[in-house]
Amino acid sequence: MKKFFFVAGLILFLFNLSFAQQLKSPNGKLTLTFALLADGTPSYQLSYQNKEVIKSSKLGLELKKDKKSLLNDFTIADTKTSTFDENWKPVWGEVKSIRNHYNELAVTLSQKETNRQLLVRFRLFDEGLGFRYEFPTQKNFTYFVIKEERTQFAMAGDHTAFWIAGDYDTQEYDYTTSKLSEIRGFATKARTENLSQTAFSPTGVQTSLMMKSNDGLYINLHEAALINYPCMHLNLDDKNMIFESWLTPDAKGDKGYIQVPFNTPWRTIMVSDDARDILASKMTYNLNEPNKIKDTSWIKPIKYIGVWWEMITGKSSWAYTDDYPSVQLGITDYSKAKPNGKHGATTANVKKYIDFAAQNGFGGVLVEGWNVGWEDWYGNSKDYVFDFVTPYPDFNMAEIRDYAKSKGIKMIMHHETSSSVRNYERHLDTAYKYMRANNYDAVKSGYVGDILPRGENHYSQWIINHYQYAVEKAADYHIMVNAHEAVRPTGIARTYPNLIGNESARGTEYQAFGGSKPNHVTILPFTRLLGGPMDYTPGIFEMDISKLNPNNNSHVNSTLANQLALYLTMYSPLQMAADLPENYNRFPDAFQFIKDVAVDWDESKYVEAEPGQYITVARKAKGTGKWFLGSVNGESPRTATFKLDFLVPNKSYIATIYADAKDAHYKTNPQAYVITKVAVTNQSKLAQFAAPGGGFAISFVEADKSQLKGLPRL
Amino acid sequence: MKKFFFVAGLILFLFNLSFAQQLKSPNGKLTLTFALLADGTPSYQLSYQNKEVIKSSKLGLELKKDKKSLLNDFTIADTKTSTFDENWKPVWGEVKSIRNHYNELAVTLSQKETNRQLLVRFRLFDEGLGFRYEFPTQKNFTYFVIKEERTQFAMAGDHTAFWIAGDYDTQEYDYTTSKLSEIRGFATKARTENLSQTAFSPTGVQTSLMMKSNDGLYINLHEAALINYPCMHLNLDDKNMIFESWLTPDAKGDKGYIQVPFNTPWRTIMVSDDARDILASKMTYNLNEPNKIKDTSWIKPIKYIGVWWEMITGKSSWAYTDDYPSVQLGITDYSKAKPNGKHGATTANVKKYIDFAAQNGFGGVLVEGWNVGWEDWYGNSKDYVFDFVTPYPDFNMAEIRDYAKSKGIKMIMHHETSSSVRNYERHLDTAYKYMRANNYDAVKSGYVGDILPRGENHYSQWIINHYQYAVEKAADYHIMVNAHEAVRPTGIARTYPNLIGNESARGTEYQAFGGSKPNHVTILPFTRLLGGPMDYTPGIFEMDISKLNPNNNSHVNSTLANQLALYLTMYSPLQMAADLPENYNRFPDAFQFIKDVAVDWDESKYVEAEPGQYITVARKAKGTGKWFLGSVNGESPRTATFKLDFLVPNKSYIATIYADAKDAHYKTNPQAYVITKVAVTNQSKLAQFAAPGGGFAISFVEADKSQLKGLPRL
Repeated sequence: MKKFFFVAGLILFLFNLSFAQQLKSPNGKLTLTFALLADGTPSYQLSYQNKEVIKSSKLGLELKKDKKSLLNDFTIADTKTSTFDENWKPVWGEVKSIRNHYNELAVTLSQKETNRQLLVRFRLFDEGLGFRYEFPTQKNFTYFVIKEERTQFAMAGDHTAFWIAGDYDTQEYDYTTSKLSEIRGFATKARTENLSQTAFSPTGVQTSLMMKSNDGLYINLHEAALINYPCMHLNLDDKNMIFESWLTPDAKGDKGYIQVPFNTPWRTIMVSDDARDILASKMTYNLNEPNKIKDTSWIKPIKYIGVWWEMITGKSSWAYTDDYPSVQLGITDYSKAKPNGKHGATTANVKKYIDFAAQNGFGGVLVEGWNVGWEDWYGNSKDYVFDFVTPYPDFNMAEIRDYAKSKGIKMIMHHETSSSVRNYERHLDTAYKYMRANNYDAVKSGYVGDILPRGENHYSQWIINHYQYAVEKAADYHIMVNAHEAVRPTGIARTYPNLIGNESARGTEYQAFGGSKPNHVTILPFTRLLGGPMDYTPGIFEMDISKLNPNNNSHVNSTLANQLALYLTMYSPLQMAADLPENYNRFPDAFQFIKDVAVDWDESKYVEAEPGQYITVARKAKGTGKWFLGSVNGESPRTATFKLDFLVPNKSYIATIYADAKDAHYKTNPQAYVITKVAVTNQSKLAQFAAPGGGFAISFVEADKSQLKGLPRL
Repeated sequence: MKKFFFVAGLILFLFNLSFAQQLKSPNGKLTLTFALLADGTPSYQLSYQNKEVIKSSKLGLELKKDKKSLLNDFTIADTKTSTFDENWKPVWGEVKSIRNHYNELAVTLSQKETNRQLLVRFRLFDEGLGFRYEFPTQKNFTYFVIKEERTQFAMAGDHTAFWIAGDYDTQEYDYTTSKLSEIRGFATKARTENLSQTAFSPTGVQTSLMMKSNDGLYINLHEAALINYPCMHLNLDDKNMIFESWLTPDAKGDKGYIQVPFNTPWRTIMVSDDARDILASKMTYNLNEPNKIKDTSWIKPIKYIGVWWEMITGKSSWAYTDDYPSVQLGITDYSKAKPNGKHGATTANVKKYIDFAAQNGFGGVLVEGWNVGWEDWYGNSKDYVFDFVTPYPDFNMAEIRDYAKSKGIKMIMHHETSSSVRNYERHLDTAYKYMRANNYDAVKSGYVGDILPRGENHYSQWIINHYQYAVEKAADYHIMVNAHEAVRPTGIARTYPNLIGNESARGTEYQAFGGSKPNHVTILPFTRLLGGPMDYTPGIFEMDISKLNPNNNSHVNSTLANQLALYLTMYSPLQMAADLPENYNRFPDAFQFIKDVAVDWDESKYVEAEPGQYITVARKAKGTGKWFLGSVNGESPRTATFKLDFLVPNKSYIATIYADAKDAHYKTNPQAYVITKVAVTNQSKLAQFAAPGGGFAISFVEADKSQLKGLPRL
């Protein structure tokens, strides 16, 4: 500690601060400096080895209708440092054990004029910093309203950023790669149409925000443990390259109603000179509370298929009939409706999917469009839009339940809320009970369209509270939740591991809505996935959507091999094979990889990573010796070269490589793949081609000599 | 009908209208004229015999973000007239059978440009008019948003009005009596402080609005069947004396999200030259749908007492402790709290009330402040404020339940929501189940403070929907609802007779908060009570509140005899004896009337009525031959003179008269009362003195000659 105080003294002297204290990360590479500026404004700096990551940045909150904000005139009441180191076992995950190791600095600030105390807690991990504001119990400070959180992140340069436009209602944008100084210029182009969207600033961006500095630092800004607080966006002062927190407002424009005692979510800054460290970091989970669900035996990773892509592509419909331009539940008489002949969720069709799942080793079948109301469900701020317990006349719940049971298949329920949040909460108990009664133990919930109550946004405090409520209540019923269009996750699945999935980003569906950028999947793991798994719904084999629906000319900007690699690179305990059974039947050799790949892991090794360009990861299946590897590629063709040193020494494996053919291309030749089998050991070195928008997937199975006979060796 | 068409033709000629049609009330006294103005604007007029009640007034709705509003350019597509006459039996009420008799005119309007249809349905009763807008199912018109409803009520003169200030959040104002032209001048004075209030216009007033014209017409404007629509206020154009509807907005300022088909609430205009007709009218109920609760055996009128007035006066407290300035449910540890020694809802105190109830023939005991959270419950927009199932440590739910059962007493639960509506809905099922499990079949719900979701108001569509939801869900659990601070009723208790009470006006509690005007109770039956019963909580015997709490100098502006009369004049199937047992024990002879008086009736006869001055009503108890009479008086002393011709001919009764003493006065001598017994028949004529703020109450018991011996005869 002596050294710290010496440095702190030097800083005080140099910058005329009233107080400064430093903290080092366990490995010594990261240095945090907390300082009180001359006017009593708290601030912090972060450096990685000798490089500045965050320049002096102010901390604080502006309050509404309050005599004084929590911005300045603070003195130091107390500081405490400590070290924490433990290992914990996630219920599911990329690894079987997670180390939570950090040094902590807790600074208690006192504001004389108001007699208020504010604590800033910093946790410095090897791969980054987390800090939050804490408001301990105190007299005369019980409630307050936040006008804006004023947390700064002063960047040290005009970094390259991988960003999506700031929005109160959607994250479903393609990533833009640009310099920070270029964000303003791209602001309009970065936004595409969505059924619910609300912009707030031309330099507003969302977190998790990935950046790369000119001197090779990878920096990520995000938050952890977003509980009962508005979602944080960032607004850039692009003259000074300073990001400032920008919370999502409520219907009145307020940004947080707080009751003391309270802790804000953690603000996180990950940094490394190796991009793989960002992907491998478990810092976001570590900043969340431990698991609160006692019995987790019912929480199970699963591979599933679904009556879904046929609706997304327009081949079939969620709606049962075209008769009704407007539906009133309980009044509209479906028994008199003429079926439109395109309804996807029919008993017969669902049984076909159940058969396919059972034949190919999938655990579950999702069905959308099973319940009445889809003729009239968004765009009109409709309140009573779904009741979640009334199937269409052609969906026989009991028959499907029994058939699925007989085949050993779990059904996955779909609850589209249409963002009518009160309506969903009113039906939630009944809906969950109905699920349990019909053999469903997982729900995909959806929040399409503008939020009701009107004036609230997808990411405002009130609605954040709702998503959490739905997850916690689901846990009471032993139901797993996969929420779509909800707020992006912030590691809460550590505390509530029944939150097995989220969308909250641009998923595969957009490949049928006009396409996503081919490098999209090389960015998502650096951004969206840091907070938790994404139900990305990979596995599309037919890239020409017009083959499914002649009226849809969308193209899936990905090679088939890239689609296979996603099962590794887009980590999720819930993995869909999203394409239609008939498309899988056309490519049984490639489909074999999807059938083989695991969904839960003992180990994960990030082999290569560069945001926007490529990600290669190897994972060891939980409880088996099998390894799988996936590599996704951006726009430029490349040959990935790396050692297979993750494999167990002195063992031999058959590697089945599913790769792009030489002439493969996401646009012009996406289905050109080659499958080769080779014999490998942990000494082998691979040089594997990946096409534009391509990639490769490998399964490794331990084999004895006789099995290796005749195979080429690497 | 011939005559109608002749008159209509004449009107067309005289006023250059494009269409006009008339309708008469069953008794012929009221005439409605519907007319289409030259620009296709629908309009109506109403006259009573030869007097104009409503001058030509426009009808229509202004829509938001829509190409064209529903205001003009209409043509007549169809008109239909019909007659309806039936009798129906209310589950509880002032009378055992209600006649629903009206002539109807339904005008279907067509708007060429939009191809939309709008139907205006008029129902003309002997005592007034109801009309509503109906939007029948039609193509291309499925949803719309109301910017404002533009229904006019053009008054024929500068009437005297009995009004409370327009407000989106409270009705708890004293009535102001003024000319219409004086409303603006009184606007500020008419508003007193409330924990939630939102004004909108200096000439805004609430309904039900009572008026009296210079030529002796009593006119009332209100609405019926307010379901899934914002509460209607009225805004006065005080140059032209035209009221226009002013709906309560939502958080975004919108005034109604409508899905077609839809019917608005009824707009009602009652009119008579006899004020008693307004009080006796059942028009508001008749405009509601018939009872939707099949088994009503569990809905029972009740007289009750409660642990309530001691908190209202400040004698005791809802809160258990003074230790905590801020409470977080589930976290705050009450077992460690120091009791403040003033908590009202202790097991011992509740048992005392149960004993008193059992001894004096009351059916129920209400207890407020029984559940944790009251230390910190309003003013901070607190979301999770109560859980409705956790008693304070000193309130033994099981012990009280069993004790009440053993004494034959029903407990009445209190659910203060603190206007945190989402929180209440989240707990509603659990709370109702908890009630059933603990022998509670009635709930008093409360909506103190500003509404959550923030930005919504007590009377906006979203919240109207909530009140209805709570009532309907309560019916599922066989629970009766008595909602306080909710929207004022509009006859919905016909459809859901488990809505046995409402506050939604300035109740007796204000007598402990500084006092109400002494003539308040002579206005409420003309306004608030037209839509349904009020839980006014009468029966205060000690008017000097400082005798209960030395720190409270409020005075109850009422004589004791007036308090007795309220059990008749303020009709409710739920009647409280609000004062403390010890105050009743001081006046056992007067208390006898409260013990005797019925709460459900076969017949009611309004004997005298003048808004703001006096009301006298006689009622025959359900299933018995007993009659009771109550008379309340305003500020001026008077002698009421009337015949007892409501009594059964050729029978003799002992009338026990509880009346003001000659020197009684609400302010200076409120407890001066005299009780006399006289022998009466239906030929008797009474001349009974009533003091300022006073009144009298009479019970009539049939008696034979021997019982009448020695009694003076009237």
